[in-house]
Amino acid sequence: MAHPGNNEHPESTAVELTLAPLPASRKVYRSNESGSVKVAQREITVSASAESAHTRGQTVPVYDTSGPYTDPAATIDVTLGLAPLREQWICDRQDTEVLSKPSSWYTDARAQNLTAQAQRFQHTRQPRRARSGLNVTQLHYARRGIITPEMEYIAVRENLGLSRAEMRDAMGRQHPGQSMGARIPDYITPEFVCSEVAAGRAVIPSNINHPEAEPMIIGRNFRVKVNANIGNSAVCSSIEEEVEKLVWATRWGADTVMDLSTGPAIHETREWILRNSPVPIGTVPIYQALEKVDGNPADLSWEVFRDTLIEQAEQGVDYFTIHAGVLKDYVPLTRKRLTGIVSRGGSIMAGWCLKHHKENFLYTHFEEICAIMKAYDVSFSLGDGLRPGCIADANDEAQFSELRTLGELTRIAWKHDVQTIIEGPGHVPMHLIQRNMEEQLKHCHEAPFYTLGPLITDISPGYDHFSSGIGAAMIGWMGCAMLCYVTPKEHLGLPNKEDVKQGLMAYKIAAHAADLAKGFPGAQIRDNALSAARFAFRWEDQFNLSIDPPTARKFHDETLPKDAHKDARFCSMCGPKFCSMKITQDVRDSEQACEHDS
Amino acid sequence: MAHPGNNEHPESTAVELTLAPLPASRKVYRSNESGSVKVAQREITVSASAESAHTRGQTVPVYDTSGPYTDPAATIDVTLGLAPLREQWICDRQDTEVLSKPSSWYTDARAQNLTAQAQRFQHTRQPRRARSGLNVTQLHYARRGIITPEMEYIAVRENLGLSRAEMRDAMGRQHPGQSMGARIPDYITPEFVCSEVAAGRAVIPSNINHPEAEPMIIGRNFRVKVNANIGNSAVCSSIEEEVEKLVWATRWGADTVMDLSTGPAIHETREWILRNSPVPIGTVPIYQALEKVDGNPADLSWEVFRDTLIEQAEQGVDYFTIHAGVLKDYVPLTRKRLTGIVSRGGSIMAGWCLKHHKENFLYTHFEEICAIMKAYDVSFSLGDGLRPGCIADANDEAQFSELRTLGELTRIAWKHDVQTIIEGPGHVPMHLIQRNMEEQLKHCHEAPFYTLGPLITDISPGYDHFSSGIGAAMIGWMGCAMLCYVTPKEHLGLPNKEDVKQGLMAYKIAAHAADLAKGFPGAQIRDNALSAARFAFRWEDQFNLSIDPPTARKFHDETLPKDAHKDARFCSMCGPKFCSMKITQDVRDSEQACEHDS
Repeated sequence: MAHPGNNEHPESTAVELTLAPLPASRKVYRSNESGSVKVAQREITVSASAESAHTRGQTVPVYDTSGPYTDPAATIDVTLGLAPLREQWICDRQDTEVLSKPSSWYTDARAQNLTAQAQRFQHTRQPRRARSGLNVTQLHYARRGIITPEMEYIAVRENLGLSRAEMRDAMGRQHPGQSMGARIPDYITPEFVCSEVAAGRAVIPSNINHPEAEPMIIGRNFRVKVNANIGNSAVCSSIEEEVEKLVWATRWGADTVMDLSTGPAIHETREWILRNSPVPIGTVPIYQALEKVDGNPADLSWEVFRDTLIEQAEQGVDYFTIHAGVLKDYVPLTRKRLTGIVSRGGSIMAGWCLKHHKENFLYTHFEEICAIMKAYDVSFSLGDGLRPGCIADANDEAQFSELRTLGELTRIAWKHDVQTIIEGPGHVPMHLIQRNMEEQLKHCHEAPFYTLGPLITDISPGYDHFSSGIGAAMIGWMGCAMLCYVTPKEHLGLPNKEDVKQGLMAYKIAAHAADLAKGFPGAQIRDNALSAARFAFRWEDQFNLSIDPPTARKFHDETLPKDAHKDARFCSMCGPKFCSMKITQDVRDSEQACEHDS
Repeated sequence: MAHPGNNEHPESTAVELTLAPLPASRKVYRSNESGSVKVAQREITVSASAESAHTRGQTVPVYDTSGPYTDPAATIDVTLGLAPLREQWICDRQDTEVLSKPSSWYTDARAQNLTAQAQRFQHTRQPRRARSGLNVTQLHYARRGIITPEMEYIAVRENLGLSRAEMRDAMGRQHPGQSMGARIPDYITPEFVCSEVAAGRAVIPSNINHPEAEPMIIGRNFRVKVNANIGNSAVCSSIEEEVEKLVWATRWGADTVMDLSTGPAIHETREWILRNSPVPIGTVPIYQALEKVDGNPADLSWEVFRDTLIEQAEQGVDYFTIHAGVLKDYVPLTRKRLTGIVSRGGSIMAGWCLKHHKENFLYTHFEEICAIMKAYDVSFSLGDGLRPGCIADANDEAQFSELRTLGELTRIAWKHDVQTIIEGPGHVPMHLIQRNMEEQLKHCHEAPFYTLGPLITDISPGYDHFSSGIGAAMIGWMGCAMLCYVTPKEHLGLPNKEDVKQGLMAYKIAAHAADLAKGFPGAQIRDNALSAARFAFRWEDQFNLSIDPPTARKFHDETLPKDAHKDARFCSMCGPKFCSMKITQDVRDSEQACEHDS
């Protein structure tokens, strides 16, 4: 991929994004009944219609996060960004105005900065903000019973574009779930989406300045979502790599992406990411605020932070992690811990509090933060700055004290109709996971939970995507709405593209397993389709239906590479004589013979 | 590795086994109080003694399955096999006799076979058998209150060689577990081992013809164990590869290994594996029986099967998977399934039943099988031939009918003092896992459960080690005693060495997570040590304490390769300014300053 912003040959920029559709897959657009929204979706074509598997003849519908990048009909130019899917909806609401210039002094300063010129995204839009005194959050609309196009879109999307009848059929071929207290209907309607948002049990991250994003929802009564973190650090990686990581992450199923960049050109990197992202983008604004004060937490101030919020809100960030629950009095509770404070934001704010002998300014200015959030519809992701960083520190008083404060802040955010999710741990042994979920539901009034893992052991650096994926699957089942992925590089270094994919594969499995366990409508369709293909030795279908078709095919072909083996009634694992599925089919044949005998 | 049995240059055979100890690790031998046993164990040396982590100054004890291969002091010659650790104990019991020749006609025939000559292990021992009318199982001894050296060994091993005082100290730094009904003492005594075996709640797989194996125990009140399957198929892989896979598997933590070879030279492959295995070996004898009748299930007979049992028992196989619960009447229950019968043994026996219109001969001859098992102390692993092969088929009537029959067979095995474990699924969504454990405990009278995964979704070929690892961690916590690993090649092809390692890493994490959740004594020692190293930026210690030190180091070095970075107070993930652990330590310093102020 050429350097974005290389203006010498803007037209000829050769961007090496990963664009082809996945094998046997095509992008389809499903409308709702009124035709007011067209929802992007992936359909996998299979070679035979298996009775208990499919819903639309020979295709299997799959929830799709990859946006236009996997649509061969779409024109992709990262220097222009994606088409603003939601722009008309936002305009039609007539509650926002386009500003003549950005409101952040830092954005202004950065625009004057000549060294940033080469890295700058050129086709920025003027920012949009709520008209004076108005509130433009999806929560605000929902509480007034307004069903937005975003909600219409989400209902179709959560149903995989299936009709009620098709879903009823699918549910007949699926295990009833154990919802663990969730209340999931058999079919997702726009009214249900609206009511869940109104209750605060779900959020639709949808900054009015990020109209490129396809609407999605985070809540325990919907599909479990996965977030992928990307972002460069001072040590390595470039803007180009981060944009490709974004496209790559959505290809492999990231429902949202957090840009955790901490290096130079953080403002410009974010602009490139936002303009090219089909999924909501989250950030941790304190990281950039700290960059602005040269990395010294003591020099942070509400003024610097406030300007950073506005800067990022006007760029289009959909949710902010805000560590407003790290109170001064909680810091001493971490003293006896084995690994202290392991959240970057948490440690920064703890450092500030102790240095100034003052309460956390994110807490003391919380209502002012709410006022900014509601003018752009940025959602809160209330950060767990005191999450445990090892098994030994799990579920301690520091962690749960902060959680109760996050619950208090949730009430304040809701008073302003600001959408809110709550971040959770971290490192927790399996038997202590459920308590995390219960405490969160209780103290945070059913606001969606968004956890990092949790890792269920500390001994697995290099495999922490897996250790944390176990915890993620369990807490997803128990009611966690979004799982923040962990890559194999966790604790060791900055993830590369392959690490991003491995993290996503682990977490897509975890989230899907949680959907199956909760009994989410249609969750078992793909499992049934793949298993039917497996039993019928339709190898190509089996590869194409899997979460990672190229890898499944490669693993098969390592031992049986020939095309002829794609119809073989065995694989190299057991060889031709010992394939149970082949023998079973012989048994079925002979059973039928028996029945004719008797 | 040269071809085993290459007799032209037997002395110069260059065997490429993986032998070096893991980094910073050494083999130690811990005695029990009386000094009657010396238990092999791994100790990891760390560079600093962290208060809450270590038990013996600067070393961390780790349960070790790798046998003499990681002891530089041991002489390894695969053509001779390992030293017979248990031989004297077996002799001392004076209840066995050395036979003048093998009792199996097939073993005899194979010895005469000239084409097998090149592949033959040369230093076979004459087989040993119980003296007429005697019973030599550990269950038989346990029920008479006899504490065998095997039990003494296991007690030391399960305690990681720690003294009572050391364990008490470790328990003070560990979360109390949620045992889910297990009754785990704070310290494992030989008496406890004996009583658990006597109750049938644990087994010690220990064929008198496999004296090379280091004693280990499988039971829900002990550490959760992991089995690795190896074995060639007709399609690929050789004896040499299988022996190295065995050594490799024990290096990465396989507590037992199943040899599932189905190709040619199955007898010779097994001999090489047994003579060189420090861990118990399991097999599925029906596979070889089927080879003997040219792969046609209908031609199987009790006579062929019986001779195969004796052949393998006299070679030293420690446990047999026997699909005696696949009853004729259960086969029609699988008809409506999406994927029929997916157990190889199950499909073979179902085929036999239907062809002959007769009851499964493994069921009708079960007491005769018991008579063979007790003469060598081979344990039963009662196979789940009707386990579900996909999510849709989980927990159905076929599966649970067979489970109840396995419970009935357990009673019969116990009548003969034959040790017994029960095999379990397979593919089960998360919310149906607990029912599997409960039904097994109830119907099989607390005989140890040994499950394959279960996989919690079908959509992840290429990542099924992970999908199944989630189910494995959960069922391990709930009471499953041993987890049969799944590799990334599951459903796709024969695993290679790297796949074996990946499968083991996933399952060692699952088993360890289960131990933590159950609160097994000392389980948290290594987590605490690693986290202490992490917090103190002792990178080398962090790598060495991890489950896969070379991978952890490699991942770190991809972005920060210099030696100087091994003391760095950051990694490339966050860079120097954003390391939470560094900031926390600064916070702690400033806290102390505050305290001095106030």
